[in-house]
Amino acid sequence: MAEEMLGGDAAGSVGIVQREYYTFGSANEPFVLEGGGTLEEVVTCYEVYGTLNSSGDNAILIAHGLTGSSHAAGRFKPDSPYAGYWDRIIGKGRPLDTDRWCIIAPNALGGCRGSTGPASPDPRTGKPYGSRFPTITIRDMVRAQRPLLDHLGVRRLRLVIGASMGGMQAFEWAVTYPDIVDAICPIGSSPIQSAQALAFNHCMRRAIMADPEWRNGDYYDGPGPRAGLAVARMIGHITYLCDDVMERKFGLRTSTPISEPEPSDWTRFAMEEYLDEEGRLLVHRFDANAYMAVSRAIDLHDIGRERGGLAAAYRRIRARCLLIGISSDILFPPESVRGVGEAMQAAGADATYWEMESNYGHDAFLEEQTKLGPPLLQLLSEIETPLAAAR
Amino acid sequence: MAEEMLGGDAAGSVGIVQREYYTFGSANEPFVLEGGGTLEEVVTCYEVYGTLNSSGDNAILIAHGLTGSSHAAGRFKPDSPYAGYWDRIIGKGRPLDTDRWCIIAPNALGGCRGSTGPASPDPRTGKPYGSRFPTITIRDMVRAQRPLLDHLGVRRLRLVIGASMGGMQAFEWAVTYPDIVDAICPIGSSPIQSAQALAFNHCMRRAIMADPEWRNGDYYDGPGPRAGLAVARMIGHITYLCDDVMERKFGLRTSTPISEPEPSDWTRFAMEEYLDEEGRLLVHRFDANAYMAVSRAIDLHDIGRERGGLAAAYRRIRARCLLIGISSDILFPPESVRGVGEAMQAAGADATYWEMESNYGHDAFLEEQTKLGPPLLQLLSEIETPLAAAR
Repeated sequence: MAEEMLGGDAAGSVGIVQREYYTFGSANEPFVLEGGGTLEEVVTCYEVYGTLNSSGDNAILIAHGLTGSSHAAGRFKPDSPYAGYWDRIIGKGRPLDTDRWCIIAPNALGGCRGSTGPASPDPRTGKPYGSRFPTITIRDMVRAQRPLLDHLGVRRLRLVIGASMGGMQAFEWAVTYPDIVDAICPIGSSPIQSAQALAFNHCMRRAIMADPEWRNGDYYDGPGPRAGLAVARMIGHITYLCDDVMERKFGLRTSTPISEPEPSDWTRFAMEEYLDEEGRLLVHRFDANAYMAVSRAIDLHDIGRERGGLAAAYRRIRARCLLIGISSDILFPPESVRGVGEAMQAAGADATYWEMESNYGHDAFLEEQTKLGPPLLQLLSEIETPLAAAR
Repeated sequence: MAEEMLGGDAAGSVGIVQREYYTFGSANEPFVLEGGGTLEEVVTCYEVYGTLNSSGDNAILIAHGLTGSSHAAGRFKPDSPYAGYWDRIIGKGRPLDTDRWCIIAPNALGGCRGSTGPASPDPRTGKPYGSRFPTITIRDMVRAQRPLLDHLGVRRLRLVIGASMGGMQAFEWAVTYPDIVDAICPIGSSPIQSAQALAFNHCMRRAIMADPEWRNGDYYDGPGPRAGLAVARMIGHITYLCDDVMERKFGLRTSTPISEPEPSDWTRFAMEEYLDEEGRLLVHRFDANAYMAVSRAIDLHDIGRERGGLAAAYRRIRARCLLIGISSDILFPPESVRGVGEAMQAAGADATYWEMESNYGHDAFLEEQTKLGPPLLQLLSEIETPLAAAR
């Protein structure tokens, strides 16, 4: 999930933003993970756009994808060319309107963009966890966000929204804390990992592990598995696109004609240059162990685990659920998302499916984010009505 | 493409088969490749099932996929547990009936299963080509098969059939040698590489290159890039399956419960064990440089190159063309194959599309090969009729 080049229209922008940090846990009261591991200190990096009202019930939580961060809107510096990844739908008068809502965007547990992850110092040793970082799950990510909300004074989440892994967190929020979540909007996502997505993640991890610099995860005194992480990212990018957008953007356009010998770097096609560049870019901004840990959390994702299965989990949900599928998504195919919506309805959940028409593949939730505006405004108006009536 | 465990029914089997070899080329008359490189010696390993008639016009050519071989039917030894990959459709009374047809199955140029490839000795040095193996194309593979057919006395190819890369060769045969090909049957294939399939191949090559043992291709005095090649194969296998068959076979079945720490080999799921095993198996039977060279040939595949584009290439074809798409194929989606059939018809080619209903993904051409029987028998009866009438 890339940050976004800022467009020309700054009207409504949340402006300059900054990262905040909230820490909980101690040696005596560690955060106990679903898999049984513990963390003595949990740091959550987050950003806030808008103001929490006095009753603490106008909050929206935004959860990000695999390699994302807390930076969903605005800019860190006035001259920064990049805005947060959902900048076009967050701000004054934008679908996620900061005049009305207090938007909280945490960095997920297990990552490397400010929150506790494998590169963080283990309080017991003072050195990075590396191979000793415990297994985490999407449910752990959600449970680690709850103390942050308490700290901020949030009493209700009007909406939990996220795409991809962010949507997985939205599903978990609705099942883990049904009493405080009014609505969820998972986009291009699923309540349970698919076998195919698991297979892709496995290949990505294997690419990292095949790099001798991975050193079983204890590489922080070396260069790290840069080549392996780059390959992992390239694989991921295939799943974020679709053949249609690839054909339009790159097709078989060659940078090196067939009449020349194979280039020494085996890059002949524009498609290859694109993937190489995406691989290079990620290596500069992401930690390989975090990639391992977070992709594993995705693979372990199942909102029905230890809850009697998916249908039983759906029955716990009290939130209004808007499931958005992307028509060209190959990672979370729209027919699967639609099927989840139907299964949720069958279990009695208040679920609706809406399909985003796009030929950008999974990445459409970034590339064509403004298409999310109308269904989001509709969803927010639906959940607002009962509250207004009760006043 | 794996060889097949032999089923119980041996009736009709072609029985014990053996590899044959045909060599052409010399320092004075090298084989000149499409990209400009040359090979002073071209060895083609092949197998023959059935007998060529005196007029040399009952031959069928079978072309294999990326990691395939010439071993399409029968067994090498009586006690071998494995038969050729299309054993169920090749033999007496089987769809490709060896009582009637002489079936020729060559190993493709650039591979490592007997024909000349990067691991072959370069006649100029006596050492393996390695990094000095020239760029080859699908067209080169086809052109290298022509002298073999002349050597065998084949005057007409009644049918060129193959799946995946084998289908690419079938397309090339129909355009390169329109005068001697009566029919082609590409299965789960395309007349031109897609951007998405190119992207997958790039990731596979990058996985190999990221392995320090690759040594730019000159690794024959070392262990070779085994870890990288295994990762490449795993990526490939995802594209040969589809989510449906993965869910049925593996789903999220874990071999290691979540309550245990992450295994040191990061294998928790049955899906992962399957991919690991496929990776391991390939490393024992395939050369990494061959994987690089042949996957590049696939990426360069375009029957319209230097021929005025695809439509112009279609107009050259005089063969009857039966295009088979597999309903669950993610590598060569059925709608793309159908679209090619329509474009061929629009260009005046005698093309028909038939869809194989299967939920095995691309691999269905192996797993459910007997489903190919009826359309193949139909095709063969169609091309036989004019010949019989001419007698």
